[in-house]
Amino acid sequence: MTVIDINSDMGEGFGPYKMGDDEGMLAIVSSANVACGFHAGDPDIMRRTIEGALARGVDVGAHTGFNDVWGFGRRVIVGDSLRTIENATAYQIGALQAIATSAGHRVTHFKPHGALGNLMFKDSDLADAVARAVKSVDRELLWVVPPATAGEGAGARAGLNVIREVFADRVYADDGHLMSRRLEGAVIHDKAIAADRVLRMVENSCITTHSGKRIPVHVDTVCVHGDTDGAIGMALAVRQRLEAAGVGIRPLSASHR
Amino acid sequence: MTVIDINSDMGEGFGPYKMGDDEGMLAIVSSANVACGFHAGDPDIMRRTIEGALARGVDVGAHTGFNDVWGFGRRVIVGDSLRTIENATAYQIGALQAIATSAGHRVTHFKPHGALGNLMFKDSDLADAVARAVKSVDRELLWVVPPATAGEGAGARAGLNVIREVFADRVYADDGHLMSRRLEGAVIHDKAIAADRVLRMVENSCITTHSGKRIPVHVDTVCVHGDTDGAIGMALAVRQRLEAAGVGIRPLSASHR
Amino acid sequence: MTVIDINSDMGEGFGPYKMGDDEGMLAIVSSANVACGFHAGDPDIMRRTIEGALARGVDVGAHTGFNDVWGFGRRVIVGDSLRTIENATAYQIGALQAIATSAGHRVTHFKPHGALGNLMFKDSDLADAVARAVKSVDRELLWVVPPATAGEGAGARAGLNVIREVFADRVYADDGHLMSRRLEGAVIHDKAIAADRVLRMVENSCITTHSGKRIPVHVDTVCVHGDTDGAIGMALAVRQRLEAAGVGIRPLSASHR
Amino acid sequence: MTVIDINSDMGEGFGPYKMGDDEGMLAIVSSANVACGFHAGDPDIMRRTIEGALARGVDVGAHTGFNDVWGFGRRVIVGDSLRTIENATAYQIGALQAIATSAGHRVTHFKPHGALGNLMFKDSDLADAVARAVKSVDRELLWVVPPATAGEGAGARAGLNVIREVFADRVYADDGHLMSRRLEGAVIHDKAIAADRVLRMVENSCITTHSGKRIPVHVDTVCVHGDTDGAIGMALAVRQRLEAAGVGIRPLSASHR
Repeated sequence: MTVIDINSDMGEGFGPYKMGDDEGMLAIVSSANVACGFHAGDPDIMRRTIEGALARGVDVGAHTGFNDVWGFGRRVIVGDSLRTIENATAYQIGALQAIATSAGHRVTHFKPHGALGNLMFKDSDLADAVARAVKSVDRELLWVVPPATAGEGAGARAGLNVIREVFADRVYADDGHLMSRRLEGAVIHDKAIAADRVLRMVENSCITTHSGKRIPVHVDTVCVHGDTDGAIGMALAVRQRLEAAGVGIRPLSASHR
Repeated sequence: MTVIDINSDMGEGFGPYKMGDDEGMLAIVSSANVACGFHAGDPDIMRRTIEGALARGVDVGAHTGFNDVWGFGRRVIVGDSLRTIENATAYQIGALQAIATSAGHRVTHFKPHGALGNLMFKDSDLADAVARAVKSVDRELLWVVPPATAGEGAGARAGLNVIREVFADRVYADDGHLMSRRLEGAVIHDKAIAADRVLRMVENSCITTHSGKRIPVHVDTVCVHGDTDGAIGMALAVRQRLEAAGVGIRPLSASHR
Repeated sequence: MTVIDINSDMGEGFGPYKMGDDEGMLAIVSSANVACGFHAGDPDIMRRTIEGALARGVDVGAHTGFNDVWGFGRRVIVGDSLRTIENATAYQIGALQAIATSAGHRVTHFKPHGALGNLMFKDSDLADAVARAVKSVDRELLWVVPPATAGEGAGARAGLNVIREVFADRVYADDGHLMSRRLEGAVIHDKAIAADRVLRMVENSCITTHSGKRIPVHVDTVCVHGDTDGAIGMALAVRQRLEAAGVGIRPLSASHR
Repeated sequence: MTVIDINSDMGEGFGPYKMGDDEGMLAIVSSANVACGFHAGDPDIMRRTIEGALARGVDVGAHTGFNDVWGFGRRVIVGDSLRTIENATAYQIGALQAIATSAGHRVTHFKPHGALGNLMFKDSDLADAVARAVKSVDRELLWVVPPATAGEGAGARAGLNVIREVFADRVYADDGHLMSRRLEGAVIHDKAIAADRVLRMVENSCITTHSGKRIPVHVDTVCVHGDTDGAIGMALAVRQRLEAAGVGIRPLSASHR
């Protein structure tokens, strides 16, 4: 039986502010990437998200970013040394680990957020720094990255267990990277189309690009977005389509280690 | 041979800003209470402080406070639930643990900072919440508190290893608590007087109060301040006086567990 | 013709985060109390809120609070000197004034937020400090406060133009203050009841308390909340009830000075 | 008689943290560029700095930057729209204006800080956005920029009064820009050399570059740094050298308008 993980970013509120429908999403996904207080999230939200994940058998991962709540981690901050990035990554992972421990759960994967992720997927030195931080804190953490990026190489070089992720609602360019959101048609809004596309990627172990080119890749997890309109409907359609085709939905930790 | 620990708050800079002479202090103390980014400190400063401590055989503890760099954790923030305090405590400990792990060191004690500490020493419910957080993250963490406070009871109730601390430069009231800094004579500025006083507390296992009353207490550690004028001189005088009298200076972890 | 102002707190989002339906509210109220970046709001949100207010002939006021986005200004921060409160108040007013000037609008009133407001309504020294700040920045700013509070006295002592406010959805105790939200029945959820109550307070120039006692007060403005469920419906019901009874809705600046 | 202004960045502490010797500097300079709380500074520090300036007849200017205390405004934050930069600039100026008004002083110039300044000196669109903000808040504000930069053009286009600044301790490249600090010899540490160099630039109305090339420029103000070792000595040497040569030191507002 083919099995796959479905992941989503969660816990991205801040104090009184909400972002996305975490409760709804936790009923659909098998892995939650939890914001760690730098780009979003706070200790209370982290705790609640982890408790919700635990109650539903959902994996918890550290979703780390630049220290920029105002910009939601979407602004690139230029000028930090690699050492600073490394320390800030360790800090965020540890904060989440401790809250998970308090709640009786466990952090089992790592996935970078927003501008930090985008930089990491292009810049090998930066990706290596983040991978060093992850490895130094817990070498068992699963390293979730899009295939064919600098992030994939960095995980492999560090000896981390690399988890390859595809996006349910995004179109791929011929180089295997996501088409820029600024381009017409880069985001898929029709949930049935998205669900079919995900199924094909999982079944065929390849990404089909905008032009129809097929790039072989073992797909370990599918990312569904939580902060867009119709997010819950899209996520549910993807899950139901996969299950209807006999694909099992399993958290990453069930299939790795 | 009588042994004692000397502890000091460290890593209390922020970004480009400095606070105290951490390098100088690390050569004198046996335990460093490291700020965790909420009231002071940042991932880089935490890392450097931990590396310095490791190089000198100095213990590292989590020094947690309210999320208030502007107020340096000295302002009481009213309105957080006990649950919020608990989560924020776990968050900070975990952040420091991860950076210590990255650096090859280990967090072995816990000591609250500023307004949070002052509240905890009076409010048992709050102290219990903080102790729950510490215990849930790592039940081996040594719980450093002034004797005869709500903090001492909370540590005992939680089954934590309670470490009793006295202050080198502060005068005690007859109830065993520190005299308010606002009162004339509450702070000792003469290093020779402070050093003698510490030696007597350690040798006699009692606190001598302002009026001469003696309160029995097993003294496990002496706190020397790092952010005052003459801090280094005071700390050095205390250490040298203890050593001259044959008292051994040992980090907490060497004597406990 | 009786005229009255309707005010609401606005611009209380932060970065990517939303709070309340500012667009909907701007179509109903005559005065907007705009968050100034300390408890909520940011320069972009301030600008958009001011532009919306200008387009609809709505007055803009400075809505200032403690520097605490995480706690949304609802936590009391203890330890600031009166001078610090004064400087922080001036800072926030000035920031809003400059953005209003840039947008071609003008700040014409002042209303404190959350924990700062609650403190000010009980503590005359604090209220005097805030009034000093307001007066020193712009002595023409209208000083919006609940009647029978320390805030009212402070405004009068400072020679400011005092604007007395009642709340549409809150029940009053016999001392003329709001009943604590924690008490059963302290918040009115039925919009028709709230609207009738507001009309009686405006027409009779008195507050009717929980027990039926009537406290004479000239009502200058009615506060409608923006961040509760049904906020828009409640605000609209209040406005329509007042208009149906022949009461004119006018911004504060139209009636004062 | 030739007259010139000497300016320095000030008020760059934060809460309990200090940066530079503002008291010492206020006795030497004629204009203070005051941090506005985004990259450094807070309402109390702003107030104290302004009071010190007022007492000594020193001009006050708004020194604005990215919202990044941790990075001290030295990190470039990529992703803000020009509108956001404009609003954030207005916000900071207004905050300082209000505190100046409270203190009985007045903001009369504007000078960008750190990474924001460096960007503005290369990027005309960004510089125009900042100039629009300045103009929209107070068109009388003097616009302090290095000559031959995008900032100079933007000030002129906006119709602002452009003030050309040279640096006492920095070497110029042949394009009239500062040599990068990373290059050997880019910073002058000898105060006598720096003072002589400043005098020649002022007397000859030209910048002499690294290679000896002379670029004509009317020098309106000399910037002395406050946060480096020997800052006070350097600033004093510059002032004394100028005065000994008969050059008058006057705040910008005395010579313009």
